[in-house]
Amino acid sequence: MESKKRRGILERLDAGEVVVGDGGYVLQLERRGYVKAGHWTPEAAVEHPEALRQLHREFLRAGADIMQTFTFYCSEDKLDLSGNVTNITGAQINDAACNLAREVADEGGALVAGGVSQTPCYVKNRNETEVKAIFKKQMDNFLKQDIDFLIVEYFEYVEEAVWAVEVLKTSGKTVAATLCIAPQGDRHKVPPGECAVRLVKAGADIVGINCQLDPTICLKTVKLMKEGLEKAGLKAHLMIQPLGFHTPECNIGGYVSLPEYPFALETRAMTRWDIHKYAREAYNAGIRYIGGCCGFEPYHIRAIAEELSAERGFLPPASEKHGLWGAALEMHTKPWVRARARREYWENLLPASGRPKCPSMATPAADGLGEN
Amino acid sequence: MESKKRRGILERLDAGEVVVGDGGYVLQLERRGYVKAGHWTPEAAVEHPEALRQLHREFLRAGADIMQTFTFYCSEDKLDLSGNVTNITGAQINDAACNLAREVADEGGALVAGGVSQTPCYVKNRNETEVKAIFKKQMDNFLKQDIDFLIVEYFEYVEEAVWAVEVLKTSGKTVAATLCIAPQGDRHKVPPGECAVRLVKAGADIVGINCQLDPTICLKTVKLMKEGLEKAGLKAHLMIQPLGFHTPECNIGGYVSLPEYPFALETRAMTRWDIHKYAREAYNAGIRYIGGCCGFEPYHIRAIAEELSAERGFLPPASEKHGLWGAALEMHTKPWVRARARREYWENLLPASGRPKCPSMATPAADGLGEN
Amino acid sequence: MESKKRRGILERLDAGEVVVGDGGYVLQLERRGYVKAGHWTPEAAVEHPEALRQLHREFLRAGADIMQTFTFYCSEDKLDLSGNVTNITGAQINDAACNLAREVADEGGALVAGGVSQTPCYVKNRNETEVKAIFKKQMDNFLKQDIDFLIVEYFEYVEEAVWAVEVLKTSGKTVAATLCIAPQGDRHKVPPGECAVRLVKAGADIVGINCQLDPTICLKTVKLMKEGLEKAGLKAHLMIQPLGFHTPECNIGGYVSLPEYPFALETRAMTRWDIHKYAREAYNAGIRYIGGCCGFEPYHIRAIAEELSAERGFLPPASEKHGLWGAALEMHTKPWVRARARREYWENLLPASGRPKCPSMATPAADGLGEN
Amino acid sequence: MESKKRRGILERLDAGEVVVGDGGYVLQLERRGYVKAGHWTPEAAVEHPEALRQLHREFLRAGADIMQTFTFYCSEDKLDLSGNVTNITGAQINDAACNLAREVADEGGALVAGGVSQTPCYVKNRNETEVKAIFKKQMDNFLKQDIDFLIVEYFEYVEEAVWAVEVLKTSGKTVAATLCIAPQGDRHKVPPGECAVRLVKAGADIVGINCQLDPTICLKTVKLMKEGLEKAGLKAHLMIQPLGFHTPECNIGGYVSLPEYPFALETRAMTRWDIHKYAREAYNAGIRYIGGCCGFEPYHIRAIAEELSAERGFLPPASEKHGLWGAALEMHTKPWVRARARREYWENLLPASGRPKCPSMATPAADGLGEN
Repeated sequence: MESKKRRGILERLDAGEVVVGDGGYVLQLERRGYVKAGHWTPEAAVEHPEALRQLHREFLRAGADIMQTFTFYCSEDKLDLSGNVTNITGAQINDAACNLAREVADEGGALVAGGVSQTPCYVKNRNETEVKAIFKKQMDNFLKQDIDFLIVEYFEYVEEAVWAVEVLKTSGKTVAATLCIAPQGDRHKVPPGECAVRLVKAGADIVGINCQLDPTICLKTVKLMKEGLEKAGLKAHLMIQPLGFHTPECNIGGYVSLPEYPFALETRAMTRWDIHKYAREAYNAGIRYIGGCCGFEPYHIRAIAEELSAERGFLPPASEKHGLWGAALEMHTKPWVRARARREYWENLLPASGRPKCPSMATPAADGLGEN
Repeated sequence: MESKKRRGILERLDAGEVVVGDGGYVLQLERRGYVKAGHWTPEAAVEHPEALRQLHREFLRAGADIMQTFTFYCSEDKLDLSGNVTNITGAQINDAACNLAREVADEGGALVAGGVSQTPCYVKNRNETEVKAIFKKQMDNFLKQDIDFLIVEYFEYVEEAVWAVEVLKTSGKTVAATLCIAPQGDRHKVPPGECAVRLVKAGADIVGINCQLDPTICLKTVKLMKEGLEKAGLKAHLMIQPLGFHTPECNIGGYVSLPEYPFALETRAMTRWDIHKYAREAYNAGIRYIGGCCGFEPYHIRAIAEELSAERGFLPPASEKHGLWGAALEMHTKPWVRARARREYWENLLPASGRPKCPSMATPAADGLGEN
Repeated sequence: MESKKRRGILERLDAGEVVVGDGGYVLQLERRGYVKAGHWTPEAAVEHPEALRQLHREFLRAGADIMQTFTFYCSEDKLDLSGNVTNITGAQINDAACNLAREVADEGGALVAGGVSQTPCYVKNRNETEVKAIFKKQMDNFLKQDIDFLIVEYFEYVEEAVWAVEVLKTSGKTVAATLCIAPQGDRHKVPPGECAVRLVKAGADIVGINCQLDPTICLKTVKLMKEGLEKAGLKAHLMIQPLGFHTPECNIGGYVSLPEYPFALETRAMTRWDIHKYAREAYNAGIRYIGGCCGFEPYHIRAIAEELSAERGFLPPASEKHGLWGAALEMHTKPWVRARARREYWENLLPASGRPKCPSMATPAADGLGEN
Repeated sequence: MESKKRRGILERLDAGEVVVGDGGYVLQLERRGYVKAGHWTPEAAVEHPEALRQLHREFLRAGADIMQTFTFYCSEDKLDLSGNVTNITGAQINDAACNLAREVADEGGALVAGGVSQTPCYVKNRNETEVKAIFKKQMDNFLKQDIDFLIVEYFEYVEEAVWAVEVLKTSGKTVAATLCIAPQGDRHKVPPGECAVRLVKAGADIVGINCQLDPTICLKTVKLMKEGLEKAGLKAHLMIQPLGFHTPECNIGGYVSLPEYPFALETRAMTRWDIHKYAREAYNAGIRYIGGCCGFEPYHIRAIAEELSAERGFLPPASEKHGLWGAALEMHTKPWVRARARREYWENLLPASGRPKCPSMATPAADGLGEN
């Protein structure tokens, strides 16, 4: 049912365009009062569509070219496992989420991406047939809706991600695949370069990293993937959707292992200026699908779009409400705030935490797989 | 036009009830892409009513008993001064903002408060007649709408706040008055205790502090106001709506003087657990109108409502999506995250900033009035 | 037996001269391996005279005008209490310490000061007769030696310090008295201003603060003493010998209450540039006897002497081995180190701790007397 | 002239004994007022022998088995280059330094090591003949004195260190060789493993790392050296003498590139408990010559000797003045300090810097050779 008029994701990337991804839904909707931390299930798509529509719209206004469906943890077994006590079914959520994403995407020429994530099933028994059946069922649900392409995301094991890609490629849709691993490699210690090679060989059109670690670290991992592909003589588009939180500890367990997860991450939140730096570095590394994951709010996405406005040729709608590099502060009533209406000020500022009794870095929890 | 059926603010406070205020609109809508920092004008009420309605609703679901109208900087002269380039008039904004606040308030039995703030006019010439005329005009606008009571807020000089109270009391409505001052006193060095006395003598039913400094410091200032009232043999209800950012520097210029204002305040954001502590301390200090200002997001308001749920006798709607003290983490897939499903963990955690090259405290900008 | 030729401490202060005190012996000799932390007794004066002589000499070379005798905890009862297991008597220590101080003082025209400190006896029964007898015995010991003046130092209760002054004044010697209290007052909550008045009325010629808190805080307390004296129409010379460690927590228990005491204070050590700032501020506050206590090493004393070299008219011997404000770095082999040979660099540097997992401020231990 | 009775360094290491090195002379004597930062020349050996003797003795009492001669920068050309304005010759310094080291070493059965360091000449023209002539002259000076063995230390280029080893081996003495490089390799990017191989092939009996970076990083580098030797099938004893300052930035330029060098390093100083950890880890890594360099004071050396007292079979003399793991705090007058008389307290303490406006990590100066 895909609209014929839209320019597809590959068409855009092949033309060398920058594609701006959207931000994180789950954590932001938790703060807004619609998602329960711990359960993390997406029943809000049915219960409070206006809340989800509004967040989609904010990402769109901020410059996102993609609306990911809010279908995280949406298979029936996961909903059960996560303590879902409503009578809302996974199918209902899926339909509602796809419709909302489509509705908002069409307000601004964006594309809709349906996503599948790693399964508890894989870790339990590593049974290829069972795991692939789960992905097949999710894909079938998506194909009943007006989805533009598919994303395989948040996989700690490349083997399982490869299985997902193999299933999803049978749809004929473009498939992007992002792992949530550290530069040290996946949980079976497969290095990022080799992970990328396996994903592309399985059929992924776009590969990269999402979630778990901060932009600096995720960029390092994507660069290793790129090197791996180049050595293997393979080609694929690169994609990055990192955390919006600073994680200098760079532990393989990611931010879930940090003591602050999930209710005291405020201090680690990135500023819009951190994002400018990230967007530029991602672009310079040859990555063209640039978005965010948990911790990316609408203004972070806008910062990507503003940093790359010359390359894209336009500013996003929400930039009507933002002076580039703080320019609108020139209207402030206090002279010392007006003096901050310039790039140099924000680019060089080291923000204070306001917490003299807190450390700068934490000791991550052991995650059962060792730290490198 | 006030509805006869609603229990008014004084009725609630006189009965000893806790009244939960709402959070900050301006900064949150800036991050969502609808307000321009530097200008800070509220034209979004007309341009994007769905965005404002959604934020009102999130505060309501989080437990707020009050919806403040989004009418900050709404007089014609301020809109001009702030570089308003739209054709939207102050009157249009005022009508739209009052209607939206009323619409959402009625979804949950909340009250609507119309607010007036300090004027540029006062600082310029300290002319009582001129300044009072401005407040009179704003009041007249509010009285055309279905407003429950009025708030005089964000005043650095108690003299001007007294003028505002004197004008607003002519409406016959309940008037609350909050200054944005430090424990050192107002900008003319009038101590908080005397400020409170002057406001109550002018007719304020509720007095306290809002914005500019963090809960710890604002609490200190409200306590000084309380002591002043007690020494003078006066009675009034107490109110507090502090910043949602840590400002241990406690400078009289407030957070506007901090180098991080307004685009790098992320690190200073309070966690929900900081808010629990604040709500309890405010309650223990005898304050019964407890809310937040800039930096308070819906989940911070929920934390007030959860901390004081025993006193209020109920949990807010958004607590359906929140386990008390992180209880729902028991459903998390990682054992070390499940171990965090308890009050002791979150109450004692000192969050790391993730920024080893940043300091803990900043040197505030001089503010032309000296630091104490 | 005092030499007739030396210009006395009052003669110097009355002439408006700056008198530079010495630094801390106990902690420095602990690090050098001659004093046992916990016991803190001064038997090293007998056991290892060369080590004590050397430290005296380093302070003298650094510019100290005073050599305090190393007789802390030197009464027989304290030696017993502190677990002294040697056969060395208090009298032996006292003689050795006085002789060593005299020997080195004479190498550079310095004065020797004998000191008495607070007694366990006072806290136990607050018996004036008993406590005064202890001070009398210590004074008699000092008078057998060639001592220039006496110091009553490290008292938490002004009442006990007054008793000490009353006893020591009977010697006919000049008496200086420093309390180890916070700006909040002594342990009976007597404010610093009143403490100063009582000490001067008891006969103290010089009053001030020593130990327990950092220069910034001790300066605040001495200023309060000065104000108290002025209000009472009294005159006395002012003296300050603060900690050489940063204690921004400003708890009334002082650094002994900090978690880092006594074996992890390294991070809090002041740089020579911190001392420059301190010396200037002390001078500007009208204080003329300026030294240090625990944490002050020879190079810190030199920094006092260098900051005030114009006022004193000379540099100390050890400045032969120090370029003012880092000037000698011009000889360094690395160009970026040579670029640091200037005052502006060191005056503005904010040193990093190199400890990303440590906080900036600690939570002091409760000290049984409450915190203000 | 070597005494026949002493057990030599190799005899001790071959027997599997732990050899404890001494600490840093230059920085410590700067703080005591005898060395000029920037010049860093050792004329104090002649000018103030009592000061140098005292520091040697403190290291000996702390448990050092080795006294390094205080002859850093002692060749005539270096003395000139460093702005030496005295009439003291390099030969005079050398004689005095060797005699003092010998005198103190004999008080406790320690060995005397004469050291040579990298030359400005190497960087200027990389002329092997010239550079070797300088080392030859220094060696000849040492051989006139009663030296037990020789140390080639503080070399940034392995090539120059190899030349030094080749020259010094002609003496027939044991030669130890330590580079001051980061885990990234020497300044010509030769990896640590290969550096070790070249040094051993040139004749070094003991190899390792000294100065520039902190124990954690230096340990990493020595482990890489060990791996290199093992892969090459070579054998040598391992040695480590790191900085006594935390340098988590791990830049190849070392601490000289940090903004705090050399006058604001206080915050970075290691505690005795940091040293316990270091000594244990060094021992576990198979290193048997364990000492310190700049920043190691006598109490740091004592901490090595105390941590390894079971392995060595004895405590050093200075432990008479130290309770193991703070045990003597049991005698303290304050109960909360007595509660710190235990290993667990000190081992887990994260010390606060007392500097809320300072960062945790710094940005090192560029060093002209790139950072890895």
